[in-house]
Order: sequence, then C-alpha cells, then structure tokens
Amino acid sequence: MHRNHYPKIWLSILVCLILPAVALAAQAEGSKKEDKTAIILASFGTTVPSGVEDILNIQRKVEAAFPGIPVRNTFTSNIIRSVWKKRQAEAQKWLDAGIPADILYVKNVISTFGDLLEEGYRNIIVQPTHIFFMEQSHDLMQYVDAMRSIRTIKEKWRPFDKIAFGRPALGTIGPRYDYANDLEKALETVASDVELARREKAALVYMAHGNEFWPSSIFIEAQKKMREMYPQVMTLFGVVEGSPGIDEVVEALGEAKPKFKTRKVVLKPFMIVAGDHAFNDMVGDDEDSWKNTLTAKKYQVTPVLKGLGSNDAFAQIFVKHIRDAARDAGIALP
Amino acid sequence: MHRNHYPKIWLSILVCLILPAVALAAQAEGSKKEDKTAIILASFGTTVPSGVEDILNIQRKVEAAFPGIPVRNTFTSNIIRSVWKKRQAEAQKWLDAGIPADILYVKNVISTFGDLLEEGYRNIIVQPTHIFFMEQSHDLMQYVDAMRSIRTIKEKWRPFDKIAFGRPALGTIGPRYDYANDLEKALETVASDVELARREKAALVYMAHGNEFWPSSIFIEAQKKMREMYPQVMTLFGVVEGSPGIDEVVEALGEAKPKFKTRKVVLKPFMIVAGDHAFNDMVGDDEDSWKNTLTAKKYQVTPVLKGLGSNDAFAQIFVKHIRDAARDAGIALP
Amino acid sequence: MHRNHYPKIWLSILVCLILPAVALAAQAEGSKKEDKTAIILASFGTTVPSGVEDILNIQRKVEAAFPGIPVRNTFTSNIIRSVWKKRQAEAQKWLDAGIPADILYVKNVISTFGDLLEEGYRNIIVQPTHIFFMEQSHDLMQYVDAMRSIRTIKEKWRPFDKIAFGRPALGTIGPRYDYANDLEKALETVASDVELARREKAALVYMAHGNEFWPSSIFIEAQKKMREMYPQVMTLFGVVEGSPGIDEVVEALGEAKPKFKTRKVVLKPFMIVAGDHAFNDMVGDDEDSWKNTLTAKKYQVTPVLKGLGSNDAFAQIFVKHIRDAARDAGIALP
Amino acid sequence: MHRNHYPKIWLSILVCLILPAVALAAQAEGSKKEDKTAIILASFGTTVPSGVEDILNIQRKVEAAFPGIPVRNTFTSNIIRSVWKKRQAEAQKWLDAGIPADILYVKNVISTFGDLLEEGYRNIIVQPTHIFFMEQSHDLMQYVDAMRSIRTIKEKWRPFDKIAFGRPALGTIGPRYDYANDLEKALETVASDVELARREKAALVYMAHGNEFWPSSIFIEAQKKMREMYPQVMTLFGVVEGSPGIDEVVEALGEAKPKFKTRKVVLKPFMIVAGDHAFNDMVGDDEDSWKNTLTAKKYQVTPVLKGLGSNDAFAQIFVKHIRDAARDAGIALP
Repeated sequence: MHRNHYPKIWLSILVCLILPAVALAAQAEGSKKEDKTAIILASFGTTVPSGVEDILNIQRKVEAAFPGIPVRNTFTSNIIRSVWKKRQAEAQKWLDAGIPADILYVKNVISTFGDLLEEGYRNIIVQPTHIFFMEQSHDLMQYVDAMRSIRTIKEKWRPFDKIAFGRPALGTIGPRYDYANDLEKALETVASDVELARREKAALVYMAHGNEFWPSSIFIEAQKKMREMYPQVMTLFGVVEGSPGIDEVVEALGEAKPKFKTRKVVLKPFMIVAGDHAFNDMVGDDEDSWKNTLTAKKYQVTPVLKGLGSNDAFAQIFVKHIRDAARDAGIALP
Repeated sequence: MHRNHYPKIWLSILVCLILPAVALAAQAEGSKKEDKTAIILASFGTTVPSGVEDILNIQRKVEAAFPGIPVRNTFTSNIIRSVWKKRQAEAQKWLDAGIPADILYVKNVISTFGDLLEEGYRNIIVQPTHIFFMEQSHDLMQYVDAMRSIRTIKEKWRPFDKIAFGRPALGTIGPRYDYANDLEKALETVASDVELARREKAALVYMAHGNEFWPSSIFIEAQKKMREMYPQVMTLFGVVEGSPGIDEVVEALGEAKPKFKTRKVVLKPFMIVAGDHAFNDMVGDDEDSWKNTLTAKKYQVTPVLKGLGSNDAFAQIFVKHIRDAARDAGIALP
Repeated sequence: MHRNHYPKIWLSILVCLILPAVALAAQAEGSKKEDKTAIILASFGTTVPSGVEDILNIQRKVEAAFPGIPVRNTFTSNIIRSVWKKRQAEAQKWLDAGIPADILYVKNVISTFGDLLEEGYRNIIVQPTHIFFMEQSHDLMQYVDAMRSIRTIKEKWRPFDKIAFGRPALGTIGPRYDYANDLEKALETVASDVELARREKAALVYMAHGNEFWPSSIFIEAQKKMREMYPQVMTLFGVVEGSPGIDEVVEALGEAKPKFKTRKVVLKPFMIVAGDHAFNDMVGDDEDSWKNTLTAKKYQVTPVLKGLGSNDAFAQIFVKHIRDAARDAGIALP
Repeated sequence: MHRNHYPKIWLSILVCLILPAVALAAQAEGSKKEDKTAIILASFGTTVPSGVEDILNIQRKVEAAFPGIPVRNTFTSNIIRSVWKKRQAEAQKWLDAGIPADILYVKNVISTFGDLLEEGYRNIIVQPTHIFFMEQSHDLMQYVDAMRSIRTIKEKWRPFDKIAFGRPALGTIGPRYDYANDLEKALETVASDVELARREKAALVYMAHGNEFWPSSIFIEAQKKMREMYPQVMTLFGVVEGSPGIDEVVEALGEAKPKFKTRKVVLKPFMIVAGDHAFNDMVGDDEDSWKNTLTAKKYQVTPVLKGLGSNDAFAQIFVKHIRDAARDAGIALP
C-alpha cells in the first residue's frame, strides 16, 4: 500500500499540523470574505537572535497600526532560512530564548503566499523591510508580480484579488512617490544618532550595505542630506559592498573641514538589522573590520549595535508605506 | 515580548514540524544540485476515500517510472482541500483508514511549489491528472506560468530553473502533440470496459465531466473513435455539465441501430477519479441520477465505480506525458 | 554621407507620406486626449476582391454605430498581406476596381497599433471578425496582451491606456459572456438562409473552417441549435479542416429522417468572407470540391457565394461585441 | 461605396507607398529565412539637425560592422517625433539639408517592429543609444519584452523568433556585464576631451542628463574614474536633471586642490547627441545656462558642441554591445 511509504513518525508529526489550521479556520469565520486582508513583512532575514528583535519591532508597529490584520514574516534569503532550518532541531532551545515560532519556522515568499491563500486571504500587502529599491526589492517584486499574474477562467477561482507592494524605507524608483521626500522623512528619524555623535564630539559613520552591480547614489544623497539636516555633525556613509568603502570613509574623515575635525567616531549600521554585517564587518575581530580599521587609524570608536528596525520612528515608516500601497491598490485597512 | 503572542500549544506543534525538513535535507544531500528534479501531480482532488486510490495509483506508476524523483500530490480545488482540512481534526482515523499523510494534509499549488523551493528542487515537472485541456488545465497553467515568470537580478537566486507542464491524458490544444493521436492511445487503454459491455451484451455509457463555457468536442470525438476502434459495442459519452447530458444519451440509446439494440448498459465514469460525481450524479439515490434515469427507462444498469486513474494502462499515460514534457523543457529524467 | 544611401526615388515617395499624417493631426485636434479611441477590425484577411466586400460591410456597420471613431482594418495572415503587397505594384488598377486603399495597403497588427499610437489614440478596441475563439483569436489576443503589458516608469509615456478585446461572432470561452446565448443570437441572423433552403425544399449545408488541433464543438452545437430554431429545414455543418468533413455531411444527408429527405442542397460558407475556401474548396472545379462531391452523389447544389460579413444582421453582431468589450474595459463610446 | 471615403489625394500617395515595399521584397529574396536579422537603433531622438549626425555616426559604425544587416533608427520621444512630423510638410527642404529620409519619417518602436515583421525579419536586435540603464532603457525594454511575449499556437506564426536587447554605453544593472568595466571602456574613448582640457590648462566639465526619480551614481562613479584614469585634469560631471547640478559643479571648481586650480573650463555634453540640452541648457543665452553661469563666475569657457555619438571610438561601443546581446540571444551576426 502506498501509505507504507510514510514512516510512523509522520503520524505524530501530522497530528500536530492540524491545530494551526483549525485555529486559523476559526479566526477566518469571524470576518467576511471581502475583509480578508493580510500583510507579508518581507525581510532579507538574519540569523542573529538580537537582530531578530529589529524585525519584530517593525512587526509590532505594523500589528498595532492595523489591528485584526495578520502580519506574517518571510525571509527571502535561502541561506538564512537554511540556518533556521537546522536550528529547528533544537527548537525548544530557540523558543525558550525568545525566538518566535514564525521566525524559527520562517518560510519563503512563495510558501507564505500559499499559506495565506489556504487561509482565505484574498488581499495581500507585501511590505519589504528594505532600505531602498535595489536587488532585494527588485527580486521580491518579481514574486509579487508572478502572484498577480495568475488569471483563472472564472474570476472567483483567482487565488488573490488585490496584491499591494509597499516601497522600501528610503523610497523607490519612479515618480509615484518622491524618494527625496521619503529620504528626508527617514533621516528625520535618526536624530538621536546625530545627538549621540554630537555629545561625543564624534563623527557619525553609517555602515550601509551597497552593491557592486547596480549603481545607486542613495547613500551619497543620504550623506549630503544629513549634512543639511544636521549641520552640527559630520555624517559619513560607507558601504560593505561597492563604493564608498571604509577606506574612503577614513579618507573623508582625514579631509574633514576644521570644524568637523575629530578623532572620535560613532559607528552604526544603516541597516534594518544589526546582524552578521554589524557583528562581523563592522565590529568583528578581523583586522579589516571597520572598527579595527578606524582604531588602527587612531580613531576612538563607539559602535552602536542596533538596527534601524529597533528605532521606533524608523519602524513606523513601514506602517506609512503599507498604508500608501494599500490605498494605491484599493485595499481597505483599519 | 512578541513571543507571547504564540500560545503554548505552538511549542509542541512546531517541534513536530522539524522532522520532515530534517528528513528532506538528508534526502537532498545524496544528489547534486543539477539533478534536483521533482514532479507535482496536480489533481482537482476528491473527498471520497476510494477515489483517492485512483490518484494514488497514478502516483505509484509515476514513482516507479522515475525512481528517486519525489512525486508530490496537490489538489487544486479549494473546496476539496477545505474538506480535508476539517478531517485533519481526526487525523489518526483517516491515516488508519489508509489515507496517506500527503493527501490528508494536501496543499495548494503555490504551497507545493514553495515546499519544493525550500527543499532545493530547481526543476519541476507539473503533471495534471486532467482528462483534457479545459478550465482546470488552463487555470493550472496560469500558476505554472507565474512560477516561470520570476526572474531575479542574479540568475542563481531564481527560485526555479526549468518548469515543465505535462499535457492531460487525452492531449492538449495546439500542434506540438497531435491530440487525435493522444486520444487514440488513451482509448486503447479502455479495451476492458468494452469487453465487459460486450460480454454483458450491453451498451457502454461513459459519464464525463464537460462544461458549459468552453465548447469542446473531445468527448464527441472520443465517442466516434470508440465506435471505430471497438465496433462490436455501442459506446456513448455523456457529460455532467454541458451537452450531451443523460437525456441525449437516453435518446441515442433509443435510436441505436438494430445491431446495437439492447436494454443493458454498463455505466462508468470517464473521469480520473470515481468520486463525488460518480457516487452522486452517476449512481446516487436521486431520481435524476444517471442510473435512476436509465432504470426508469427500463435499462438494466451495471455501474462500475472505478476512476480511470485505477486503470493501470491509463495511469501509465501520465508517465509518458511527464517524459515528453521533461524532454521538451530540457529536464533529464532517469 | 549617410544620406547618399537613399536613392533619389525616396524623395518623391516620402513627400507623399506627409499628407496622411497632416490630415490625421488635424483630425486629432478636435478631440480631447481622453476621448481618443480607435477601433481595429482584425480579420484573417482575403485576397478575393468580392470577399473584401464582406469585411467592408462589417466596417461600415461599425463606423455607422460609432461616428467619429476611426475603424482600421488589419489582416493577420502574412500570406494574404504578401499578396496585397504584390498587387500594390498595380495599385491604380486595384483602387479603380473599388478596393479601398486601407485594404490594398493593409498592415499587420503591430504596425496598426504603431500607427494609432503615432496618431495619439490611447484607447484601442480590437474586434476580431472571427467566428469563434479558436487559433486566430488566441493568437490575436497575444498581440493585444503584449500591447497591454507595456508599462513605463512615468504613466504618461505608456503607449496605450485601455485596450479592449471584443469576442468573436459566436462568442468565446469563459463565463463572462455565455457563448450559448451568443450562438443563438448569431443563428437568428441566418433565417434567410433557412428560408432559401425551405423554398428550394433543400437541405442547408454550411461550410465552416474548423481545425485539426483544437477540438471545438461549436459547429456541432450550432447544427443542433439550428435544428431547434429552424425545424423546417435540415441544416448540416461541415468543416474544411478537421471533422466533420464533406464525407460526413454526405453520410448525414443520406441518413436524413424521412421528412428531411431531399436531393437538393443549398451550400454556403459559414465564414465571414466568401473567399478562397468558398471559391475553391466549396465550389471549385476540383473533383473533391464540396459542390462536385455532392453533385457526384446526385445532389442538386445551389451554392451561395456570400460571406457572413455581407449579412447585415450578422455584421451588426460585431457592433454589439465592440460595445460590450469597450464597456468592460471602461472605454466610453458614442 | 466605402472607397469614396478616401479622398483622391490618397491615390497618388498610395502609389508612392509601393516602391519601398517592392525594394524590400527584392532585398529579402537574397537571404534565407533563418538569416533574416535586423538591428533597431533606438534613440530618444533629437530635433537638432547637427545632433542627427551624432546618431548617424553610430548607425554608420553599426552598418559597417554588420554588412547586410539593416539598421533602422527609431526615436522613442513622442514629442521629438511630432516635431519631425511637422517638418515633413517641407520634406524636400529637410532632405536637401542632408536629413536622411528615415530620420525625417522616423517611426516609433512599435511601428518599427511592425515594419520588420512585414519585411520578414524574425531576429531583431534592439540597441539603445542610451548612456546608462535608466528610465529610457527601462521603458524601451518594456516594448522589447512585449514583443517577446507574443506566443502563437503554431510556432511558425510567431511574429519574431529571437529578440536581443543591447546594453547602454556605460553598461547596465545586474551581474551579466560588469558595469564598472563598461564604464572604464567607455571612458577610455574620451581621452581626446581630456587632452583638449589639458592643453587649455582647463577643467573638463561634462553635462550629463540625470534624473530626479531614479538615484544613480553612474556619473559620480564616472567622475571618480576619470580622475583615476586621467589624473592630469580635473573632470567634473554635472546633470541637467537631479543632482549634482551646475551649482555644485561651480562649488567643486572653487574647492579644487591647488594643482587643479584654473579659471578655464572645457564644457561638453556627456550625451549621445549635442541637441536641445547642449544648445540651450549648456550654451544657451539664458542667464542660467551652464556657460553663462560659469562665465558669471569668471570662468573662461570653451564649449564643445559634439555629442558622444560623433566620437568614433564611443560609437564603436554600441557595435560591441550589439555583438554581446546577439550572442546572448543566440543570433548569428556576420
């Protein structure tokens, strides 16, 4: 018999699988079909437990803003999901450590859409927790467009009705939303970083991600904007991939105008999550970590190991972008 | 803390979820990345346990033909999946009754793709267990095309490499494969139905599904072909939806040429599964079931409650169509 | 100099090209941008001058129904357009013979869209002059979908705003419009054909096109419907490609019920145009033309060499389908 | 009669239209179907006659590189095409002035594809004459993707077989071709600009286009690269739209390091064409033209009114990119 293909272990496993579905079914009954909207919070992901908190903070803000609307996390990085998959072997340990189940068992984008379809959500808002529209957002949008493209003979069997796609924190390409305005709004939320640097009489150095195959001046423009908005402190942006790297940051520190001359640096990731890049590239023990590079140049470095996600005002940006995307797509939100 | 949102029950549930993933990971290691191919057997689905066996028979044939290639069932009907979802509340009962776990917990197409992505399958062959290219195949193809459409900036992050889509049992629209030839090959597999009717000196009446919004002569052509291939027996096709219905079948029986005149009918579903339509529309207690309609007209009816899926030669057609689709898509199979 | 690549002949040719553009520009000024709607009447095409009149009759009906909206003909057949291209060498002869310039210089679908874009038409209604949704409509829809898919960064540079696609005369696949209803409405328009056959005490035999790779029962259903609607006459449909062919028509004539027994046949194309198929396959001199086949079987044949396009009531169907498609796409029409 | 709708003027016009078609048909006969490849050179366009020469120079290079392959110009700007359309009223004047007919009668992208389809070209290489992948290339790619998306039931009726899309001069987004490498190769071609500035003991200021809704550091990177490649001269890039504008260029000139201090500027468009932007924004009489802005700041300006298209080595880049795109798409070229 075919069922013999399945080892006994499946029996207990599968019994377990029932409950969430039942719970969800119950939840679903309370709302009318036309109301069934869900939000997918799509992050690149992180394996660093403290970094998870940066993402959870955004999730909490979004949940608070849209009561009754489920907010699902998805991690787009295959590698990061595979790390969590291995950790599932010691699930209790991770759950006890405060990792929510939906992070420990985090799913890919396709499966997350599949789950929501199964639970009867027809309107989906996908909100990337990305800094700007670059590779990650481009690729994610491809998944969103794929889901949008499914057209059935009978309209009622279409898996989804409306799918909205929110723009990243600093905005996106195109004329619909002025990214210069988004950028300014976002930079208003980092005033406390500037204040810290000012108190320390330090320069503020942000480590952004960057890339090598998509030229984007967003961090150059951010740096210029920071100087206008916060003229009291010299803010510099460097990137892990592409240019300007830490060497150029060091060079710029050296060439600072007299009023900005300082031997002190507040060093902070300009990333949603203080994760692998923050703990390794930024403050790791390697000689060429940013901290060690700066220290070798006689700078006194104050690292801040917090992602932008844990900045409440910054996290709130995603609430705004969800609201905009939903409105543009004709999805009603509370 | 955010984790408090999750009730304690999740803990045990989620521990259970680990094991399949671990098993799958182990399975995956044995094969090189370029070999990772999986087959999705996409059925409309059935809630009738004996009907499930029709689908499992196809699955077994496919698994036997392609050793080492996982074959996943998906049911495309939302309604049918929701019935199974309710049954999950009494999972052990269903498992004990021989329902495999992957039917009891059957997933939608999107989630099935999501699972395979997660397990690292880059080449996917979707084989519908459909009779002919009609609404079901059209809609399924939309999902397949959506998955194909996802293009990432870096090729290596594309979720899937090659996705093949097999044609239904009686073939498909278009010149790539001659459906007349597919039809003939398929009808060769039902010789035993004819033989049964011949022995019984009965007419052979097939109940097909049909539809009301996509004119297709496939069953009219099948009927004509049956008469050529099996001239000893009068074969008639009727459809549940659209035309010709049972009334026209009755009329045709009445107008049979002298050599075919008979008061006996072998009545069988021309569907993959002997499911709801077979048990209700065909032989149900309602006055207007096909059996009762024929009986009322003084025909002696021998119903056969077996789907085409349980006909081994018919099931084998899908193996052939998988092989063709894989070859056309450049996917190597064992 | 590069301009020397162009022979002198170009100079006079190109001067000629100015005028239509100027005329169109003048025409365009009178209407506001949001009003600029054009209709493309897409036919397979014909090389037979009298057949052209079948298409022109439809065009006249559409132009009369939507005053002020330009109606452009396009022929989708590469072969037919290439015949007209050769005839352009004797343009005056053809123009004198009453062939309109936009037929003699008929363009493909892509160029027709290109022209309309150039003239500032942002809303386009494509109306196929097809009998039913089969290969021709499928392929045409691909072009329409391609034009619809073009999305520019700035909305204002999108080449087209709304593109509607009308359904063929006998309807289309899917639930939006019930094809059984469309079929009935269409068959109401051929009452005069039936009347002719009735007066002649003849059977009415329609030659439809058909195909060999897309099973469709539309003509089988049409035949059945004709018998219901016009019980006084035996109507038979045969097809040039696929089944039932003329042999089956002959067989059916032979097996006619007593009240329909006749040696007379009214033979007419069930095609938009009485073109190549009508003049060759239907009434050509070849032994196996339908007329000769019937004559050889001792039937007295009255051929009618008129396409459905020249039937005013039938032509009017396309006006209705344009109106439906425009409404569904949100395009206002007069 | 319908033909009466057409004024007499059409008769002579249309006779003219024959000849190109006849010529093209003749040309087509010499090559086998599988060889029929054409190149579309897609430019934003220009209305400035001397600017046309910049485009023609690229066309000549491409024609010389691929003998026997037709190279068609298309202008993507609706506004620019509409200017040429008005000029067609004085066609002879423009033709006498050396404007080639295919510029005077320049078509949009869709019509250009339509023409090539009509003439039997199945393989099309679209090469934008763009500087970098920004709005123009994005939008153009949408048209290309639309043409690629057309799939007919029978493969042989697909309008096009292979469609390649070449990357802009300085490269494109994504990992297929390293834009840093493309950038370097492109900047090697402007050595003579640097040499001119060096001889004049001037700074070299390039006016690029830029934009306000797609942050791109390509010109910032270009400026940095120029300083590495040509350390003897200070090269600055400013943009017409977005940032850095002329004010920032002036500021940078003022802050030049001692060895670069100069009151002289060589001012040149970093655009394919020295067109409207060059003649107005760069050297126009308005007080805020770049030249006047610099002059007001006491700089001595030497403007160079040549587009990059007229730089033979730069024009040759497009030959290379056509070759790469064709190879990637599997199109053979001479």
